[in-house]
Amino acid sequence: MSATLTEEPVVLTPSAAYRPPTDEELDLLRQIGEHWAQTLGGRRLSRARLPADPDLVGRGEPLPPTSRYERLVRIVDEGFVPARPGTVVASEGAIRPPSRLGRVLFAARRALLGPPLATTAIVQERLSKVVALAVLSSDALSSVAYGTEAMLVVLVLAGTAVLPASLPIGAAIVFLMLVVGASYRQTIRAYPRGGGSYIVASDNLGRRAGLVAAAGLMTDYVLTVAVSVAAGVAAVTSALPALAPLTVELGVGLIALILAANLRGIRQSGTLFAVPTYAFVAGMLLLIAVGLGRAAMDGWRVTPPPQLPATEALGPLLLLRAFASGCSAMTGIEAIADGIPAFRPPEWRNARTTLTWMIGLLVVMFSGITLLTRLDGLVPSSHETILSQLAAHTFGRGVLYGYIQAATTLILVLAANTAFSDFPRLLFFLARDRYAPTLFLRMGDRLAYSNGILVLGVVAAGLLVAFQGRTDRLIALYAIGVFISFTLSQSGMTVRWWRRRDAGWARSLPINALGATLSGTVLLIIAVSKFTEGAWVIVLLIPLIITLLSRIRHHYTLVEQAAALHPPSDETGHLPLLRARREVGDGARPAPEQVEAPDEIRHLVVVPVAWLDLPALRALAYAVSLGLPVLALHVATDDEDARRLRTLWSAWGDQVPLELIMSPYRVVVAPMVNYVRAIQRAHPELTITTVLPEIAVTRRWHRLLHNQVALRLRTTLWHYPGTVVTSVPFHLSTVSHEP
Amino acid sequence: MSATLTEEPVVLTPSAAYRPPTDEELDLLRQIGEHWAQTLGGRRLSRARLPADPDLVGRGEPLPPTSRYERLVRIVDEGFVPARPGTVVASEGAIRPPSRLGRVLFAARRALLGPPLATTAIVQERLSKVVALAVLSSDALSSVAYGTEAMLVVLVLAGTAVLPASLPIGAAIVFLMLVVGASYRQTIRAYPRGGGSYIVASDNLGRRAGLVAAAGLMTDYVLTVAVSVAAGVAAVTSALPALAPLTVELGVGLIALILAANLRGIRQSGTLFAVPTYAFVAGMLLLIAVGLGRAAMDGWRVTPPPQLPATEALGPLLLLRAFASGCSAMTGIEAIADGIPAFRPPEWRNARTTLTWMIGLLVVMFSGITLLTRLDGLVPSSHETILSQLAAHTFGRGVLYGYIQAATTLILVLAANTAFSDFPRLLFFLARDRYAPTLFLRMGDRLAYSNGILVLGVVAAGLLVAFQGRTDRLIALYAIGVFISFTLSQSGMTVRWWRRRDAGWARSLPINALGATLSGTVLLIIAVSKFTEGAWVIVLLIPLIITLLSRIRHHYTLVEQAAALHPPSDETGHLPLLRARREVGDGARPAPEQVEAPDEIRHLVVVPVAWLDLPALRALAYAVSLGLPVLALHVATDDEDARRLRTLWSAWGDQVPLELIMSPYRVVVAPMVNYVRAIQRAHPELTITTVLPEIAVTRRWHRLLHNQVALRLRTTLWHYPGTVVTSVPFHLSTVSHEP
Repeated sequence: MSATLTEEPVVLTPSAAYRPPTDEELDLLRQIGEHWAQTLGGRRLSRARLPADPDLVGRGEPLPPTSRYERLVRIVDEGFVPARPGTVVASEGAIRPPSRLGRVLFAARRALLGPPLATTAIVQERLSKVVALAVLSSDALSSVAYGTEAMLVVLVLAGTAVLPASLPIGAAIVFLMLVVGASYRQTIRAYPRGGGSYIVASDNLGRRAGLVAAAGLMTDYVLTVAVSVAAGVAAVTSALPALAPLTVELGVGLIALILAANLRGIRQSGTLFAVPTYAFVAGMLLLIAVGLGRAAMDGWRVTPPPQLPATEALGPLLLLRAFASGCSAMTGIEAIADGIPAFRPPEWRNARTTLTWMIGLLVVMFSGITLLTRLDGLVPSSHETILSQLAAHTFGRGVLYGYIQAATTLILVLAANTAFSDFPRLLFFLARDRYAPTLFLRMGDRLAYSNGILVLGVVAAGLLVAFQGRTDRLIALYAIGVFISFTLSQSGMTVRWWRRRDAGWARSLPINALGATLSGTVLLIIAVSKFTEGAWVIVLLIPLIITLLSRIRHHYTLVEQAAALHPPSDETGHLPLLRARREVGDGARPAPEQVEAPDEIRHLVVVPVAWLDLPALRALAYAVSLGLPVLALHVATDDEDARRLRTLWSAWGDQVPLELIMSPYRVVVAPMVNYVRAIQRAHPELTITTVLPEIAVTRRWHRLLHNQVALRLRTTLWHYPGTVVTSVPFHLSTVSHEP
Repeated sequence: MSATLTEEPVVLTPSAAYRPPTDEELDLLRQIGEHWAQTLGGRRLSRARLPADPDLVGRGEPLPPTSRYERLVRIVDEGFVPARPGTVVASEGAIRPPSRLGRVLFAARRALLGPPLATTAIVQERLSKVVALAVLSSDALSSVAYGTEAMLVVLVLAGTAVLPASLPIGAAIVFLMLVVGASYRQTIRAYPRGGGSYIVASDNLGRRAGLVAAAGLMTDYVLTVAVSVAAGVAAVTSALPALAPLTVELGVGLIALILAANLRGIRQSGTLFAVPTYAFVAGMLLLIAVGLGRAAMDGWRVTPPPQLPATEALGPLLLLRAFASGCSAMTGIEAIADGIPAFRPPEWRNARTTLTWMIGLLVVMFSGITLLTRLDGLVPSSHETILSQLAAHTFGRGVLYGYIQAATTLILVLAANTAFSDFPRLLFFLARDRYAPTLFLRMGDRLAYSNGILVLGVVAAGLLVAFQGRTDRLIALYAIGVFISFTLSQSGMTVRWWRRRDAGWARSLPINALGATLSGTVLLIIAVSKFTEGAWVIVLLIPLIITLLSRIRHHYTLVEQAAALHPPSDETGHLPLLRARREVGDGARPAPEQVEAPDEIRHLVVVPVAWLDLPALRALAYAVSLGLPVLALHVATDDEDARRLRTLWSAWGDQVPLELIMSPYRVVVAPMVNYVRAIQRAHPELTITTVLPEIAVTRRWHRLLHNQVALRLRTTLWHYPGTVVTSVPFHLSTVSHEP
């Protein structure tokens, strides 16, 4: 074990998402800066010459409120605290949204989620081992509620006589649990910053393997939420059949609840969800202890199970299918290795201890239940779960039975919660590597990755609605994603030990290799034996997800290349100091977007006007005040229109050159845009700024009454290189509230 | 009759929508111009100093295409033809939409509607009397297909014995037709530019009366389209029952067809629709001639009708209801007075001749059918229309019978067409008076008021879908709107003659007064007798429409007041030369939006940056090139983020002052906006331009990957007075198509 890893701080801060600048970049910036300074000469911009103090120290009287809302809720200007020259701190007052709707939503969010948490609170938001076990293991631990049953359902197809096989198969699954657990202990040590399958696979098996693991996990997380919530609702509606027509509503409500809890932040949701997890664990351990105690008193006598007819012959395939089904008890094991950054420091060590505890509990509970089921001679029934039979058999149908049933229902629902902490983290890592939109990098104001949480909630709720709350058909697809990720993760670790030969590799490699082999075998068994039951959906979905992720990355890569700084070049003699990579090797005309030093920009300002009223005059004044060449444009739909505008213009004294575009077909936007394009064709070196006079309306429906032309001009012109679009709003707010 | 009216040209050009500048405005502009010239001093802008020839003469080489699309379809630069210095003409090449989607739609529209028509073609697009009779009278003429029947259905409630009353009631309706016709002849003479009820009522009875008439007509037009199309579909599905499940689709398809024909322009749709109208008229006249001929040979003997039991007592109310129902034969009479501008010059005279013809045809057809129905002893039946019975009785069920049925079906559908020429015109007049959005002023490229046509089509189709094609329930509401408009229009004319006493007033006044009285009586009868059958909907709807129209006008009036020029004022000593009316009487600080001369604008340019890459540098270069004070802003979510940006900045040589906003809650947009607002509070005189670096993406789905912050900054900042928002797009198009 390398000592360096142990002490390394693991802090997943918001800026962990971005790389530091490279030396090459800094060097390029130096050259660019020199070029700017050179062309600007003495007209260098300085802080002292700004018309306002940017640190907001010693500012004057506040403006009067501009809207009704501002009159009601006076804005506290105290939001900004000067920290040092050039830096102000946006305190809580400064993050209140500026728009009215935004404030309402903000207040609602505060009421629901609590006050925002500063980044410095990030370490306090970490999980203790006790809470982490609850948050990150509920999925894994809840699996014991159905693992044994899933195995037996397959076995009894060959008749009651085959039931004794449940013990060796159960033992095989326990062995697999121990191997996978030991494997993940190796992974945690090697990846103390979080070793999700995506990271391990990408790191050691290549990007594509990482994407396969990520896609598998994404399907798995969504299914976990949908299936476990549907199971929880089914438990509620079996108890209260009157609620059955509300199945979908209850499910969506439940998802909204888990969503809100997770948006409150990981620690709060952890505390909230710890109780049911431990209640379930306590109930299971009690059940096993009492059951085994009684079995010991009975001299380990096996109660003969009821005789069931065989519908299938016993063969190796049936045993394999039983094994594959029983492996559903293993879903969720990877959560702790994924979630290392959520632990308190030292993160990796705490994570590993928690993993050991979880595997321990899992093994004890799974083997206990499997053994008791065998001893009590229980067989799967269509109207009662094995766990319910077992609890009834052990405790009778009293208070303890009710407790076991309630705790089971709750933890099945809470299995969804594990996905809510893993899915956003996976999206964060994908976004960091540019496979997902950058918005998943954003840590919300409660220090949770809110966007990922929201996406998971919405997709799972959509699935629930689409399947009308009957997601039982999805269970078949459920374990595939997990075993894809197990297999790739363990294979990755095996390759890693072999390549790097770090301290302890000789001990770790065989563990991971065994884990990989076994997981891969299970994956194959599941995929083959369940293909027609629905596994084909996953087999189709995963390539689709991978394609989407790859296209996102492709796009971001193109943007990054285009936006990257490039060495200055003097080939063309005078202008293009910086150029996008696309231009390297071309070296022709300097198009405006390659001209990056201020004095190299050649301007033309264009102002479309319809009439010479106050908004138009304000836009013209703004344009003229820039000190650049200005041309006013008017599209005249007939001669009278043209005459009218000329009259206005000459009364005004022709302050700005005016060009009339006669539009005999009465079209306005297209000729305007085509005219600007025609000027650009004639003068490709020009940067044309279109200054649009716009009416800033206060009510949404008023938008229909104005600015149709401005809006279309803006969205169209924006698409052409060498154009800049400026909106000069003219406000009515004060006016519209006066008599 | 005043001779001046006769020769006055009536041209409804696109610019007829806008008023010419007033002398006061021109005077104000003169003062403003002088103030500008004074503050600008020698730095006056001139055409000669522009970097490009605005007339586009002698321009250089064209730019290479920037998109895949441009490579395929080379843009013809020849679109602009210089007309004289300061004017270019946008020929057909220049109106091709600039965006790719736009071009596809443009091509589709050309294929569907034909080439665009220049404004100069407006007179050629006028209707000859023969075509106008078809276009503007199909609604009125089609009414005879159901008028007699509607009357008889009420009458027979009192038993067969009452049927002879149909002749005097029919005579009363014919008298009413003649009076209303004569009334409208007066209106056409007084309003040679188009005398729809809205105009006549607003002019003479006040704005509110005009709005009532407009609202009544609007409901009527929509109902006309929905009901007549539904009737047409019903005729088709009775002939071909297999099509019944497609009722809604057929109806919507029929509306789409009429819509497309009307968008092609008034003349083309007129020619298209003239044939069925004349076919119907010919069929009716033949039917009446043959019927009367045979009746004459039979010695005017009345066939005794089948005995029907009386379900209601004969009383004055029943007679009134029969009369009111029969008045549905009068819908559509107003169309010609509304549509005067669509006629060839001399418009009003042609319109009046056409009106006379229409009334003549209407009277002949209605009285002929009513008389023959009485002579043949026909009674309404639930499974066959009166007209069908009459045709079968007269011609036998052969080819001529089929012809009559087909022509009737067609003209019932075409009644919708009249609404399509009246409704957009009504919206045009409303928009001219600022009661409707200005987009209804726009004459489409086929010289039709496309927006109004589209709205009518969409609303009527919506009604058809909402009622699942069974709009028979709406028929009850149908005549109210028409009689509201008749009554208000004739009352308005009466008041007008009384007030103005123009030539011939003494003859015209009694005609209009009689028309008003009779129409008003019918309106009352209909409203009372049909209130519970659905007339209450219209009674509710009309005030709602009026409220909407009034609110639109209120908003436009506020905007106009705010945007209006105001006399310069030197009270405050130095700055606000122009100010919105809201500021008059306040006279305090000069807020930026009142400072209208270029040299009075105090600038601060703010550039939000996330990283120093090419898009950010381009935005910074753009900002600096304006020669104004520039401040770069960065929201840092943690210390490392801040450190990173400072490193980049100092490598670059601090070319632009940078302010870091530390955001401990990781919020980006709100602190940025609040910071700009805080500077504005401290320096209310500043106009703050925010220069946003944005990635201009080529695919729609890429938008999800970028610019979230820029978009939110733009839409939020835009709402504050004294802010200007500039987008500096950075384009990838060329990049993304390279390997």
